Amino acid sequence: MRRHSDDSFMLHTDLYQINMVETYWRDGIHDRNSVFDIYFRRLPFGNGYGVFAGLERVMSFVEQFGFTKSDIDYLREEGYEEDYLEFLKQMNFTGTIRSMREGEIVFGNEPMMRIEAPLAQAQLLETLLLNVINYQTLIATKASRMMQVIGGGTALEFGTRRAHETEAAIWGTRAAYISGFGGTSNVRAGKLFGIPISGTHAHAMVQAYQDEYVAFSKYAETHRDCVFLVDTYDTLRSGVPNAIRVAKEFGDKINFKGVRLDSGDLAYLSKNARTMLDEAGFPDAEIIASNDLDEETIMSLYAQGAKIDSWGIGTKLITAFDHPALGAVYKLVSIENENGEMVDTIKISGNPEKVTTPGKKNVYRIINNANGKAEGDYIALEGENPQNEEKLKMFHPVHTYISKFVTNFTARELHEDIYVNGKAVYERPSLEDIRGHVESSLSVFWDEYKRPVNPEEYPVDLSPACWEHKMRKIEEMLPQSAR
Amino acid sequence: MRRHSDDSFMLHTDLYQINMVETYWRDGIHDRNSVFDIYFRRLPFGNGYGVFAGLERVMSFVEQFGFTKSDIDYLREEGYEEDYLEFLKQMNFTGTIRSMREGEIVFGNEPMMRIEAPLAQAQLLETLLLNVINYQTLIATKASRMMQVIGGGTALEFGTRRAHETEAAIWGTRAAYISGFGGTSNVRAGKLFGIPISGTHAHAMVQAYQDEYVAFSKYAETHRDCVFLVDTYDTLRSGVPNAIRVAKEFGDKINFKGVRLDSGDLAYLSKNARTMLDEAGFPDAEIIASNDLDEETIMSLYAQGAKIDSWGIGTKLITAFDHPALGAVYKLVSIENENGEMVDTIKISGNPEKVTTPGKKNVYRIINNANGKAEGDYIALEGENPQNEEKLKMFHPVHTYISKFVTNFTARELHEDIYVNGKAVYERPSLEDIRGHVESSLSVFWDEYKRPVNPEEYPVDLSPACWEHKMRKIEEMLPQSAR
Repeated sequence: MRRHSDDSFMLHTDLYQINMVETYWRDGIHDRNSVFDIYFRRLPFGNGYGVFAGLERVMSFVEQFGFTKSDIDYLREEGYEEDYLEFLKQMNFTGTIRSMREGEIVFGNEPMMRIEAPLAQAQLLETLLLNVINYQTLIATKASRMMQVIGGGTALEFGTRRAHETEAAIWGTRAAYISGFGGTSNVRAGKLFGIPISGTHAHAMVQAYQDEYVAFSKYAETHRDCVFLVDTYDTLRSGVPNAIRVAKEFGDKINFKGVRLDSGDLAYLSKNARTMLDEAGFPDAEIIASNDLDEETIMSLYAQGAKIDSWGIGTKLITAFDHPALGAVYKLVSIENENGEMVDTIKISGNPEKVTTPGKKNVYRIINNANGKAEGDYIALEGENPQNEEKLKMFHPVHTYISKFVTNFTARELHEDIYVNGKAVYERPSLEDIRGHVESSLSVFWDEYKRPVNPEEYPVDLSPACWEHKMRKIEEMLPQSAR
Repeated sequence: MRRHSDDSFMLHTDLYQINMVETYWRDGIHDRNSVFDIYFRRLPFGNGYGVFAGLERVMSFVEQFGFTKSDIDYLREEGYEEDYLEFLKQMNFTGTIRSMREGEIVFGNEPMMRIEAPLAQAQLLETLLLNVINYQTLIATKASRMMQVIGGGTALEFGTRRAHETEAAIWGTRAAYISGFGGTSNVRAGKLFGIPISGTHAHAMVQAYQDEYVAFSKYAETHRDCVFLVDTYDTLRSGVPNAIRVAKEFGDKINFKGVRLDSGDLAYLSKNARTMLDEAGFPDAEIIASNDLDEETIMSLYAQGAKIDSWGIGTKLITAFDHPALGAVYKLVSIENENGEMVDTIKISGNPEKVTTPGKKNVYRIINNANGKAEGDYIALEGENPQNEEKLKMFHPVHTYISKFVTNFTARELHEDIYVNGKAVYERPSLEDIRGHVESSLSVFWDEYKRPVNPEEYPVDLSPACWEHKMRKIEEMLPQSAR
């Protein structure tokens, strides 16, 4: 059926990139150094913070950077000329990438990643990087938001069947694990990432045996760890009693871990199931709930005193159901001119929120040494070092009268070098380290920023130099008539 | 970093499948013949119909059915025993799959696909099949809904950067193409599927040259087909005039195809841009609009008399933004008993809409020969043939008084054999054929079912025998007390 093999992600990009690069190359500017920032403007879900994810996947693509024969063959069919194809064939990645670590807490309007590379290379990475970072950061953020509600409880990712095709299922579950989920039902995600896997049986097994007690017994005969799904017929009249009966009959031969409720009134059912399990002598048997759960439902179940130990979460997490897209963008902030000098660029828009911040920048998290809490994030131009300031002035980049001075602080730089001149220099952390990083990163924020409902807005400020530079650039770009 | 290679989709499944299959195998019932239906209950987006997609991808997985060494190695690490692993290693697919063609129009509660296979095999396919069919059918449906509004206009899929990871981007755009989209920006989708690709340049190019006129000229020097993106600075004062200037200067040297508007008031801007292009002597230059478009915005733009020829659609399509999940399920409807007889199964639920329809069934579209229009879909038990009826009784499966008799009809069977006893028997249609099938399938429906707002509910009925069979099974399954 297919004329070309699926052996490369170089063409997993928008066609305009290929066409722009042709213009740059024929015009001889393809090798000019350029700097692009990746950032989003608004946090999704009304959340107070985001969790950055996607770097590991981005690195796997950067390592494969280069057009394959099948890519070139296809472009030839599409009418591109041999000289341009020859140029593409020779391309490799020679740029420098700085990025937040996976699991870093991130806010609107601050660069998560900075790509500095010859213009053609930087342009060819845009679409693929956004595709990956937008999705993984979206899900890591949603999962962390859910964990704020779940607190000490356990969350399990059960959404593969509703994920958007296969890769969303596994990278989404990885993002959820980073943000504190305890495991996944997706076995491939376990195999590839080492995430703990979770699951016992489905309704189909009870149906296959046409008898709930028989089905539970058969399962107990063949597995040591048993969680019984108790809602196939009637949770309290049939399911829980059959689970208890089997648990008693098998005694020490099995590890009766609990029951799973997958439908009905989870508050009512869980409270009654808890009582039944306790009275039967199984106080350690857990109650796992599932069925279209999201943070709002979970909050409501807690408020109703539901007795639920673990939450199986599917659709609402893996699709980020209430806001299924993050709008991270990839914006040119500096480019080399014909004299070899870097010129910072700005994009003006009628919508003030869409005006870009020009120049090569770094992002710092300003931690108050007195209490260990974050005062705000601080975006400074390359070469500035806020740690050198005795008294750091922090002010709102739009409503500049909102300002404060911070002393006795630590400025933690949020970007690390990932590639330098095409060479990978970053030691990839383990998934457990990334997961730990989310937890420790979150610990420096006051609860006001972390609550799911009406969180406070965390300050993301520009250094005075960065702010003045931006204002000057705006002035320069305005039409003559408006100056 | 990884201990296992990503060489198989067999573990792209929920863990409970692996555990249930172990119980079946140890209990010796893994080879019992079983029949599962795949269907969804409700149409998404308030649409009146769905468009089935995902079969090609499903076939690629069925063809690779079988655990790889890395799958087995991982399961061994997870503690599965050697005898069970040995069984898994030997597995291959020997079942029969009947399915709708891709591009078939589909409604709630009718099987899109029917899997008949040894229980263990059928169970292992569930999660992966749902993952693929749910997403692709969701996007094909959304795209078709958008095309109902766009009518004779052209729609282009531009959503890769907001798609949920990489595979959603390309399979989503394929689904959109099936449903009538004219092309995609994703070059890999063009390479793999032969979908027409579309795109010229981005804002970054104008920024790179720091001058809009220069940027357009450079593009025109290096490409024959030119669409200029005109909103980097000011659409009507700068963008459109620069596009016209370049088009005039280059004359026959380029094919000035039009301009693209990507921000601002698209109704106002497009009307003015149209006038400017017409007055400059470019009546054939098209206006392409983009910026968070969905069917509602497009309807509103048409109502305002916007002059837009092509619609670039991203986020709202590729994520199915307003309802990002289809809830198709995989339900056991029949299973072999210990005597080798097939026993039909039902799942009862407190929620009447969740009660399954037992038995092996086929789906027919009843076409009125007098006008060529569909009277309803008709689900019959295997062995029934509605075409043999002189007078077909069609009635609502819940509100049974809503009924009619149909004479002079054609019963078009909606399922085709895809695999018979493990052997592929289906000749895969080309993408163009699938696309054509959507169009011809849609033509048999009255407009009332196709309108995006408040569509009529299309009848999906059970044959009298199928309905009676279901009622009898419900009766059998009720607890003694309720009979």
